[in-house]
Amino acid sequence: MEFAELIKTSKVDHVVLSRPFLQPVKGTLCITSHHLLLSSRAGEQEELWLLIRNIDAIEKRFAGSSGIITVKCKDLCVMYLEIPGMEECLNIARSIEALSSLESTSHMYPFFYRPKTLNLQEGWDVFTPEEQFTQLSLHTDNWRLSYVNKDYAVCTSYPDALIVHTSVDDEALKAVARFRQSGRFPVLSYYHKTNGMVIMRSSQPLTGANGKRCKEDESFLAAVLQADKEGYIIDTRSIQAAHQAKVKGGGFESKANYQNWKRLHRPIDRGRVLQESLSKLVDACNDQSNSIDRWLSKLEASKWLSHVKTILTTACLAAQCVDREEASVLIHGSEGRDTTLQLTSLAQIILDPDCRTISGFQALIEREWLQAGHSFQLRCVSSAYSHAKPRQEAPVFLIFLDCCWQMSCQFPCSFQFNEPFLIALFEHAYASCFGTFLCNNEKERFILNVKDQTISIWAWMNSLSERKRYVNPLYERNNLTIWPSVAPQTLQLWQGLFLRWNQSPERQHEAWEQINHIMEQSRRKSNPTNTGRCVPMEDYCGN
Amino acid sequence: MEFAELIKTSKVDHVVLSRPFLQPVKGTLCITSHHLLLSSRAGEQEELWLLIRNIDAIEKRFAGSSGIITVKCKDLCVMYLEIPGMEECLNIARSIEALSSLESTSHMYPFFYRPKTLNLQEGWDVFTPEEQFTQLSLHTDNWRLSYVNKDYAVCTSYPDALIVHTSVDDEALKAVARFRQSGRFPVLSYYHKTNGMVIMRSSQPLTGANGKRCKEDESFLAAVLQADKEGYIIDTRSIQAAHQAKVKGGGFESKANYQNWKRLHRPIDRGRVLQESLSKLVDACNDQSNSIDRWLSKLEASKWLSHVKTILTTACLAAQCVDREEASVLIHGSEGRDTTLQLTSLAQIILDPDCRTISGFQALIEREWLQAGHSFQLRCVSSAYSHAKPRQEAPVFLIFLDCCWQMSCQFPCSFQFNEPFLIALFEHAYASCFGTFLCNNEKERFILNVKDQTISIWAWMNSLSERKRYVNPLYERNNLTIWPSVAPQTLQLWQGLFLRWNQSPERQHEAWEQINHIMEQSRRKSNPTNTGRCVPMEDYCGN
Repeated sequence: MEFAELIKTSKVDHVVLSRPFLQPVKGTLCITSHHLLLSSRAGEQEELWLLIRNIDAIEKRFAGSSGIITVKCKDLCVMYLEIPGMEECLNIARSIEALSSLESTSHMYPFFYRPKTLNLQEGWDVFTPEEQFTQLSLHTDNWRLSYVNKDYAVCTSYPDALIVHTSVDDEALKAVARFRQSGRFPVLSYYHKTNGMVIMRSSQPLTGANGKRCKEDESFLAAVLQADKEGYIIDTRSIQAAHQAKVKGGGFESKANYQNWKRLHRPIDRGRVLQESLSKLVDACNDQSNSIDRWLSKLEASKWLSHVKTILTTACLAAQCVDREEASVLIHGSEGRDTTLQLTSLAQIILDPDCRTISGFQALIEREWLQAGHSFQLRCVSSAYSHAKPRQEAPVFLIFLDCCWQMSCQFPCSFQFNEPFLIALFEHAYASCFGTFLCNNEKERFILNVKDQTISIWAWMNSLSERKRYVNPLYERNNLTIWPSVAPQTLQLWQGLFLRWNQSPERQHEAWEQINHIMEQSRRKSNPTNTGRCVPMEDYCGN
Repeated sequence: MEFAELIKTSKVDHVVLSRPFLQPVKGTLCITSHHLLLSSRAGEQEELWLLIRNIDAIEKRFAGSSGIITVKCKDLCVMYLEIPGMEECLNIARSIEALSSLESTSHMYPFFYRPKTLNLQEGWDVFTPEEQFTQLSLHTDNWRLSYVNKDYAVCTSYPDALIVHTSVDDEALKAVARFRQSGRFPVLSYYHKTNGMVIMRSSQPLTGANGKRCKEDESFLAAVLQADKEGYIIDTRSIQAAHQAKVKGGGFESKANYQNWKRLHRPIDRGRVLQESLSKLVDACNDQSNSIDRWLSKLEASKWLSHVKTILTTACLAAQCVDREEASVLIHGSEGRDTTLQLTSLAQIILDPDCRTISGFQALIEREWLQAGHSFQLRCVSSAYSHAKPRQEAPVFLIFLDCCWQMSCQFPCSFQFNEPFLIALFEHAYASCFGTFLCNNEKERFILNVKDQTISIWAWMNSLSERKRYVNPLYERNNLTIWPSVAPQTLQLWQGLFLRWNQSPERQHEAWEQINHIMEQSRRKSNPTNTGRCVPMEDYCGN
């Protein structure tokens, strides 16, 4: 395929661009294979340099002989292009539509992005299962690294290396995999150093309507529990949904066959329900009407905060089982690739101070989302505006980031990273020049050679100039577990993300700039030879 | 009257006190004339030292042979006393009820409070009309200081000195006073240095049903406008309410008789409506049920944020008239002692950077609230819990503080004071050991000798140890006008006040403590001889 075929018009003059917080600007609009550019030629830089992949939806209307294209981005920004000439406008619109909905992953921008300062190797191998296992083996020898999934032979959505209990050999694991949906057998997600309890994740057992059993599965789970200890299975489906799943061959762990495991059903919404919640929320946030009543009604009707609350509450439950009840936990829903990962990752943030550091959080995203097989490509194919409503899209990862933000508000000194860090992860999960969030699992990434042919987001985020933008100046390591409040009154709208294009962030940035300035002064005084200036606001804003 | 008569039981042993964030404690409960004390005798200090005036409502219930008194405070805290013996419990309850509803102002605690470190003279004379006038005369000679109200002869709710236009002599002022409700003739509230425009305030004109006129009133207002300039009258009542007021002898300035003055009706709720809004809001905040939907519905139904929005929007309008339209403004509703003062003071905060400093804000409270005759005693007689529902109570001042808080959130570096400063003003307006907020106007304070017999809150707040608790470490003087956003999405619940007893503020304090700590380090490095330690958290919390 040639990109050129898709570009009906590559250049239009006298286009007026309007977007939040900036004066409208007139210039030449260019369409390249991956970008929408607009330049007034007044300065040295383009006024607009927009990744076409970031476009979620476009709308056209005509005013006289001009056409106006509303460009709605996945990062929630809405901008307007006024294009002289109806024909030109239609051509631009058609080109954007074609280029923004390219299905072939290998045609996407990360495969073409070659910045001078970053190289292809960096960042891909910093958070491996091997590294995780090395850390783990300092504390326990109950778990081993298995390569049963080499070449993704047993489970297509798992990585090739996984941490499993020493009591199960690879043959038994294969049997367990056959008994779990899509082969997702139970694996170690988190080891709690203070008491040796663990969090595991898997998919549902395939008991079916007849209550099929799997000896290997039962003994795997039995072996995880220490003598006389109870464990908890947190099923992210309602008990009804779990029963219904049996008809389609799925099911759940019965009390009779999994003694000492106590099953708790904590339904968490996902898929279409969650996607509609996001659409309604963004609609409410963009509502220009002026009434508080209407705003609060729409916020309530979106149910977004209710979903946040449910997810956080259930994550707290999992963490409590481990830390307070001293019990191990297995978490799954159906496939174990969405709500399951929300819980395992949030529970770790609650329990483990390492996950609240910048590199610890990156490792968590690698382990619990990327390697664990969250379908980023399907889930993040569009965000809040797309009319296409792809069946598999759902802001599973975004709402996880929102839960992290809620915790960081409640514990403002306990997180090494700041809000721009979480927002950057949101943006890059939906549209990126980096390869990290491409594809749906490690196997797909392997086939497309993503790790050899694209740049890792971690290489960029951890570069010196970039990293300092993400540091919370108030951070002071807190080795305690952090128990977030989930009272309705304490959960807030994530203004920094959902209102970022509606209200100018300038004043908030000013405050952080001030804090950074104070820090820098403080540092400079202790080290007078250091002449480094403080981070200027432009850097901090990411403008 | 003897306090002793009101105290049915002065001491009960084995009382258990439960309150937010603290472990229950058992000890001896004592009632004195002004305080409720509880001591376990475990430490050197009492566990409870509660000003009885701070009690808004109490409720009794019995459990076995014990009685439980729920103590609901004006600062919104709710605590429980478990008292052995029904008789004792009833006696304690009766004593609290009697002592907390004392009507005689001169029996209140400020008349008995004599701390060693503060003296009676301090703080009373720092913000006088004379001082205000001295400042003003540096910029204009269009205004003069009038003592027409000496001995409060013309207007009981005005101070003895007022700033009026030089074109009106005192005889004319008396005529104007007769034409304005309760004698509240137009006075200068704010002079905008950059363009010479002013904000004035008054009460409604007594035009009555027959459209009575007052030559002096008309020429006073005409004189204020410069040639060819227009002025705006912002009436805080709806046009209907203003028309209805005529029947009772009130009214408004007609276009015909007040040429060049343009009347804008911007209704702002007050009185019972505002009081009920507060009760509903506090009820919503204390609701322990666990649903986001219910919380958001109740928050919406309380209408509190809608009131905040209306007030802020109208204050912005007044400020815009002055700063953008270059027009002078007269603000009044009926009496001009409630909504009028909200607008004049908020407009000044928007326009004048001096009002955003600690002492400037104190001066503003003095000028625009205390000297301007806001009926603190009537309005703040109870807060959100009282069953008595006194007719005149209304959180007019509290919602003004809320508007200030909203602005300070939007402009986090532009205010020299912090949230604890605003919360302290709220607390002391409702119940205080200081005399500042006693009575309803200067005349009442004069009669009771308040300024000779009680301590001023400013003396305390400006003492070295106290003042540093109120400093915003991020403050950097901003000489621009600050235009707050009033979009519904940007106005937030004042969690620090309304949820302060529901969610532990510990983590937020930690963040500010961290900022203060950094500041202190930075200061100490620049001045190594300064060995002052940083403000410890206890000080910061006000515990």
